[in-house]
Amino acid sequence: MSESRGDVAASDDLRARVERTLRVVPDFPSPGILFQDITPVLADAALLAAVTSAMAAPWVRAGITHVAAVESRGFVLGAPIAIALRAGFVPVRKPGKLPSRVVARDYALEYGSGRLEIHEDAYAPGARVLLVDDVLATGGTARAACDLIESLGATIVACSFMVAIASLHGERMLRNHAVAVLVHR
Amino acid sequence: MSESRGDVAASDDLRARVERTLRVVPDFPSPGILFQDITPVLADAALLAAVTSAMAAPWVRAGITHVAAVESRGFVLGAPIAIALRAGFVPVRKPGKLPSRVVARDYALEYGSGRLEIHEDAYAPGARVLLVDDVLATGGTARAACDLIESLGATIVACSFMVAIASLHGERMLRNHAVAVLVHR
Repeated sequence: MSESRGDVAASDDLRARVERTLRVVPDFPSPGILFQDITPVLADAALLAAVTSAMAAPWVRAGITHVAAVESRGFVLGAPIAIALRAGFVPVRKPGKLPSRVVARDYALEYGSGRLEIHEDAYAPGARVLLVDDVLATGGTARAACDLIESLGATIVACSFMVAIASLHGERMLRNHAVAVLVHR
Repeated sequence: MSESRGDVAASDDLRARVERTLRVVPDFPSPGILFQDITPVLADAALLAAVTSAMAAPWVRAGITHVAAVESRGFVLGAPIAIALRAGFVPVRKPGKLPSRVVARDYALEYGSGRLEIHEDAYAPGARVLLVDDVLATGGTARAACDLIESLGATIVACSFMVAIASLHGERMLRNHAVAVLVHR
């Protein structure tokens, strides 16, 4: 699927390096899950810089005002992408972590269920948001984050993922949005 | 204390902008705590870029191979600083989040207690680490993270914080390490 619409424009070499460096951990966090461990990619200085740069590149002229990312791994990719796009960064968090007034949304996960929160004053009027996360699985988390962000009046310009699990078809949950993926697994 | 040893070299203007933008939330997460909410700083594109750049600057020629940061807010500052230093990024996490083999350490918090984990293969031999976090309170978390990183044979070159709570004297817990602070509160 390396030529499919919605892929992040990146060299085949970068994709190959990411695929080679990702570590797959079976049965984590629960039996039957093949967990995509991104920590070896993050620990590689050149790869961290190249991945975040490639994920930012398609949106440089898209008028992005904020990057939103979901706690916690999404923060690691989202903050450098925000800086590359000269955008602000807005955390989407698990319950009870944000100190000011929040809006919340419940969602289904690949393994269990969850609830996401965002500060209700996170966006100025006219905000244009790129949602970033490390792995797109079923899309439940990303969909909840998009719904939450849109409920505050902001526009989701696109969703960008380092990895998408092809067999879970997470893009279907995001069919109202542009979706960019660096590596399909 | 803007001239004290260990402060991040930054313009008075940058410090003033951060101080003005931080939001103090009383009694969060528990009664009596004055929580320093960094989300308005992160959401300001220019400030996010300037803060991470200023926090990276003192270490550009220090041979840093990895930035380590503590889940979750530390990730937002740590990843851009890693990229600015051409270093890799290593997450220090709460229990059960890292999928591969970990080493762990328990520690006391300003409000309660905690446990940190790090992948046991996180560092190559000779690793030189900058520890990054958003707020230095009692220093318990940072100290536990330093001890954990050193237990893997890596060297802590310094610890860098955006904010330090002066009244809690967190630097005392880190007296074996260089400590850099952007803003004292």
